[in-house]
Amino acid sequence: MSLFNFTYTIVGSNRARLGILTTPHGVIETPAFIFCATKASIKGVTPHMMRDADTQIILSNTYHLFLQPGADIVAKAGGLHRFMGWDGPMLTDSGGFQIFSLGHGSVSSEIKGKRNTHRPQTLLKITEEGAKFRSYIDGKIHLLTPEKSIETQVKLGADLIVSFDECTPFNVDKNYTAKSMRMSHRWGVRSLAEFHRLEAEQKQRLYGIIQGGVYEDLRLESCDNVNNYPYFGHAIGGSLGADKTQMYDVVTMTASKLDPKRPIHLLGIGGVKDVFKGVEQGIDTFDCVHPTRLARHGGALVRPPNNTVKRRDNINLNNGWCRDDHTPIEPDCGCYTCSHYSKAYLHHLLKAGELLAHTLITVHNVFFMNRLMKAVRTALSSARLNTIYSDWVNDD
Amino acid sequence: MSLFNFTYTIVGSNRARLGILTTPHGVIETPAFIFCATKASIKGVTPHMMRDADTQIILSNTYHLFLQPGADIVAKAGGLHRFMGWDGPMLTDSGGFQIFSLGHGSVSSEIKGKRNTHRPQTLLKITEEGAKFRSYIDGKIHLLTPEKSIETQVKLGADLIVSFDECTPFNVDKNYTAKSMRMSHRWGVRSLAEFHRLEAEQKQRLYGIIQGGVYEDLRLESCDNVNNYPYFGHAIGGSLGADKTQMYDVVTMTASKLDPKRPIHLLGIGGVKDVFKGVEQGIDTFDCVHPTRLARHGGALVRPPNNTVKRRDNINLNNGWCRDDHTPIEPDCGCYTCSHYSKAYLHHLLKAGELLAHTLITVHNVFFMNRLMKAVRTALSSARLNTIYSDWVNDD
Repeated sequence: MSLFNFTYTIVGSNRARLGILTTPHGVIETPAFIFCATKASIKGVTPHMMRDADTQIILSNTYHLFLQPGADIVAKAGGLHRFMGWDGPMLTDSGGFQIFSLGHGSVSSEIKGKRNTHRPQTLLKITEEGAKFRSYIDGKIHLLTPEKSIETQVKLGADLIVSFDECTPFNVDKNYTAKSMRMSHRWGVRSLAEFHRLEAEQKQRLYGIIQGGVYEDLRLESCDNVNNYPYFGHAIGGSLGADKTQMYDVVTMTASKLDPKRPIHLLGIGGVKDVFKGVEQGIDTFDCVHPTRLARHGGALVRPPNNTVKRRDNINLNNGWCRDDHTPIEPDCGCYTCSHYSKAYLHHLLKAGELLAHTLITVHNVFFMNRLMKAVRTALSSARLNTIYSDWVNDD
Repeated sequence: MSLFNFTYTIVGSNRARLGILTTPHGVIETPAFIFCATKASIKGVTPHMMRDADTQIILSNTYHLFLQPGADIVAKAGGLHRFMGWDGPMLTDSGGFQIFSLGHGSVSSEIKGKRNTHRPQTLLKITEEGAKFRSYIDGKIHLLTPEKSIETQVKLGADLIVSFDECTPFNVDKNYTAKSMRMSHRWGVRSLAEFHRLEAEQKQRLYGIIQGGVYEDLRLESCDNVNNYPYFGHAIGGSLGADKTQMYDVVTMTASKLDPKRPIHLLGIGGVKDVFKGVEQGIDTFDCVHPTRLARHGGALVRPPNNTVKRRDNINLNNGWCRDDHTPIEPDCGCYTCSHYSKAYLHHLLKAGELLAHTLITVHNVFFMNRLMKAVRTALSSARLNTIYSDWVNDD
């Protein structure tokens, strides 16, 4: 029997589904959130704290690890799981995304269409062969190809890996998007070939990436492409539009055309509202730096009853009103941080510049997202996702 | 029966002793090391990780907490124990030390005689009443007096608190040292009076501070002073000289004249070798930022067999040779970090600027110091402290 498996049950009237994604490092109940251990570390949090916060799966970024410490060091350590002390399921991305977005604006603004800049200067040339770029660490020039990306990801040894693609930016025309997408399709085929040549299926599974920007016909073409190749799962990538409405449209049109037997990952999206919208369309896994990055800036995710500001998913613990507030971030939260610390203490740590602030707020935000996903799964099991929406999202 | 108690057994031929220091928050086996949670947090480490690393007692700095978040906030939180989630024994210093040393050089260089600067500009005036200083946070002017220090420490609520003193700098003459010491004695008497006036003895105990610089007659006068007042314990403060030899001389002359029935703390000293020298002279507790500060710079404490450099107590995990070293900091260490991580991973975290590096190396250094103190206590119990010295210190 394969060490990998994906089973699911459609619930309700749309494509929303409950799934079980089995990997050699454990089982993921879906819908699930994947947390970003960008450089082989969840910033400021140990793997054991991540587990205690009910985390099922994390991801690391091939681009960063390719440059530091390098895949060979990780391979000598016995792979990424052993290197970083995380023994649960893990995903790596292909490295393409960071090559194309790093250096100008944030990774998330790229796919959310917020950027209006030229190509990053660290990206030197894109050809059919691959992407030539300059290391942001030491200035050395590297060529990342589909084969090199897969070779690197095989050395890293995450359970789930992703085919190499060009992440098409938002501000290019349809013609560029189409050409780029078709090259990504060819890169996907080369990724698959390298994956099989290295016999990586003994320990890993490959996701194919859907591109096509905001154009429905291109997205459908890309869905057809990945459906026709033996990918284990599918990841929706590229620009998803200029605003949330367009993003939900793109996700809807894309997810509906993907082979439902394969797990679907939505790359780089993971706001609380986005999770509801994505799950409705059949998205099985999400990843986003938002919960952990927000925490490092003092933002704690809260549900509407614990917030004072409408349309926001978090409270800013730097704010003066927290100074003398001796209650937890969320009184009804069972996380380590809410069980032991007050907003006043977290506010103090932020004011004093103490590292522990990042750790404790990150732990809360991770637990919050895992609690959200659990609530979503529970609601799905009785086909009543909509009934919990207002518990988590304040729309008006 | 009192919630506080100190019992000890003299072992061997000198003053070295094994003790039990009982507080309302638990028992401390001495000799013990006290870790610095300067601003109500061990930088980057949760109290639970401190416990897991066998920590018995921590301290916080009154000066820092006086300025941020202020004693009233901590009092409203239910005291420092609850505020920061540490339920074990705790000590606060008087605040004097930071007033006199902050801003110019490090705290440790002050008592180790390494400074050659004028008074910090944040210190505005010392009078019989107290010390006037400018906040390094918002520039506000504050007056810290013995009464204010004790009031603050009572609000913070640590088990063990310290009388207010002027920490005499190294580069003053004997005349200044003597005058300053006698004022500190008067400040000590006022500290005691305020301590009793506030009925703090219900939950706390007060240490008196010995000053006198490097002058034997002054140290003896200071020992006489504290012995004659009802302090619970004694803390050796002030300048201890220009080098290790002079420091050991000052500690020796001072410790020998202190009432042996009271616990003796050596303020701000805690190198591995210092611990052996201090314990031999009857020191019961040590504190120093060295283990935790060193960790944040990538330095991991190791015993001689695990070091490559003589006369050093640590290895620098930033160094290139760690890049491909897949063994723990110390193969025979049982700490969380050494149980799960290699030098290669910690080196990677440092190179990648990951916060987790500080956390993991601090955990090792804390465990290392606690393991050292345990080894010292075990050796003392069979009166053979000297036989383990070379396991921990590389002198030549």
